[in-house]
Amino acid sequence: MSDISLTAFNLPRSIQWSAGELYLLDQTLLPHEMVMEKQLTIEQVWQSILQLKVRGAPAIGVAAAYGLCIGIKNHIELELNDFKNLVHEKATYLDSARPTAVNLNWAMMRMTNHMERIDASTPSLLYDALVEEAELIHAEDRSLCLGMGKTGASLIKDGVGIMTHCNAGGLATSELGTATAPMYVAQSLGKKFKVFANETRPLLQGARLTAWELQKSGIDVTLITDNMAAHMMATGNIDMVIVGTDRVVANGDVANKIGTLGVAILAKYYDIPFYVACPSSTIDMSTAHGKEIPIEERSSEEITTVMGKNIAPENIQTRSPAFDVTPNELVTGLITETEIIRAPYVQNLKKFFKGKKK
Amino acid sequence: MSDISLTAFNLPRSIQWSAGELYLLDQTLLPHEMVMEKQLTIEQVWQSILQLKVRGAPAIGVAAAYGLCIGIKNHIELELNDFKNLVHEKATYLDSARPTAVNLNWAMMRMTNHMERIDASTPSLLYDALVEEAELIHAEDRSLCLGMGKTGASLIKDGVGIMTHCNAGGLATSELGTATAPMYVAQSLGKKFKVFANETRPLLQGARLTAWELQKSGIDVTLITDNMAAHMMATGNIDMVIVGTDRVVANGDVANKIGTLGVAILAKYYDIPFYVACPSSTIDMSTAHGKEIPIEERSSEEITTVMGKNIAPENIQTRSPAFDVTPNELVTGLITETEIIRAPYVQNLKKFFKGKKK
Repeated sequence: MSDISLTAFNLPRSIQWSAGELYLLDQTLLPHEMVMEKQLTIEQVWQSILQLKVRGAPAIGVAAAYGLCIGIKNHIELELNDFKNLVHEKATYLDSARPTAVNLNWAMMRMTNHMERIDASTPSLLYDALVEEAELIHAEDRSLCLGMGKTGASLIKDGVGIMTHCNAGGLATSELGTATAPMYVAQSLGKKFKVFANETRPLLQGARLTAWELQKSGIDVTLITDNMAAHMMATGNIDMVIVGTDRVVANGDVANKIGTLGVAILAKYYDIPFYVACPSSTIDMSTAHGKEIPIEERSSEEITTVMGKNIAPENIQTRSPAFDVTPNELVTGLITETEIIRAPYVQNLKKFFKGKKK
Repeated sequence: MSDISLTAFNLPRSIQWSAGELYLLDQTLLPHEMVMEKQLTIEQVWQSILQLKVRGAPAIGVAAAYGLCIGIKNHIELELNDFKNLVHEKATYLDSARPTAVNLNWAMMRMTNHMERIDASTPSLLYDALVEEAELIHAEDRSLCLGMGKTGASLIKDGVGIMTHCNAGGLATSELGTATAPMYVAQSLGKKFKVFANETRPLLQGARLTAWELQKSGIDVTLITDNMAAHMMATGNIDMVIVGTDRVVANGDVANKIGTLGVAILAKYYDIPFYVACPSSTIDMSTAHGKEIPIEERSSEEITTVMGKNIAPENIQTRSPAFDVTPNELVTGLITETEIIRAPYVQNLKKFFKGKKK
């Protein structure tokens, strides 16, 4: 099973790095067009993250690590210390593109920490080392996906209906996705199941991306609007929920795409298990409680338009939070790359990371 | 307060009848265009109901009553018995346009029962009597709205946030709406409050209609996507929910626009009162339990497109239930034209109708 990859499922990779060049699949154009866009500058990468051309917590981390390399590669003629300062500055800049997903900050910290730790004598050598570190983050993310896939596939029984929200799929990561990884692995094991994908307004990642990638992969997927979730649960179509996350904090509270909290409450009401696929890179042990997670508020236009079509009266007031926080009490388990973590989360998350250090 | 009307709020009426001609406001074009469409045939009225040019349970009932008149007015040369048979046939036909809202069936029953009860000697006299009955239904609906407005306004405290779903507004009725009636009355009493309107996919009646009519009326309204409801409740913005309904059955179960069930479950989780504005014409005492309510499944295209824009991959499987059923245990109260009915619903609904007969 070790060689399960997106290509086996007929799917493209959202991030490609080769010979110092970064290409990102422009996910805003899916499912209508499939365009790999070359990233020429760090400013372009920043915009690609802000505009959600690349999105999904793990993919943002990987893209930013490479993006940082793009931002520094034309400055290796600088003095070593000036170069290091530039790396810090560019990392801080990229980190500002979006606030909620912890992977962006995590990747920038990891790149700059790596730089401070190694003993490179020239900017050129340092650049090479940072590219290697970005490639390592990328490779690790691939293997985290496969790990979550194997851990989570055991939860998928034959014949079940699975609800997912937003896209925590291959497109959101470097490989099998987070929430979708257990589905891809279960599919490759020959299990039969149905997936219900919530369309995920405002930006419709469920309709445009999850429905697209699961359909392409041959998984039985049904698209519904977000507000049909309760009815689908009430009518016995859903046996489990698996979603991704942008940040899990030390008490097990989960930040994820707006609407996740609602699905979790519905699942609780119908006594349906609610799982969060969560690589260890998305767990932020330095934040104690979900209420401390900054929630990105996006533009009003994302609410009042759908793919350029105006759907609301002019000058209407809106709110546009991009994420919500699901309290730990609603979370049945966190599917990590090595194990499923269950309540009590404060203790079990500590134990999980203690185990990793050994 | 007895003269509160839509015109006081700068709003158009969705149904106009004058000199034997029926005009319906084409609500599919809102908020971009305001077109009153003359209904020339009963087939056109049937299509207007199916296509949601006229929608909202009470408005459907009123439009169908007039629509029946349109369908029979050119047949008054028939024999009296043939004419009566024709009326029954046309009523059955109109009743088939949509299955969930009880008002459509209720209005057709009321029209045909009226016909059977009166002693008209010619089709022409019968036609006149049926027009009068349709006008009476229309007038009664206006007064039901005002009644619900007065009953419900007492629940709206100064400074509250109110969530509503879909459009149970003036556009959905003949006058002040059902869910919106308490808001219009509270507004006219000078109360301050905020309304959060869920956009209500797939057809966006919240964004296109509720946001539009409340904004036009001067009520403080904020548009959100459906999946933001939980976050708005979690962050303390919502103190009460008021929705409309397409049918309340004898045990208090409530059929309403898809997504209502989800909002009710969220409200329960956050201990927020959940009210259903419900004229007595929408209560169906002949159906015992919500699970017996037929749920209309609409076309896949409504899920895969938004205002003509394709948002999903080709040939994707979808579900498209237009309604869901909220169990009585989640309903804090039914706001009727004369009182607020609370649990236990089986007993209290019986009592309500016993009281009406006196």
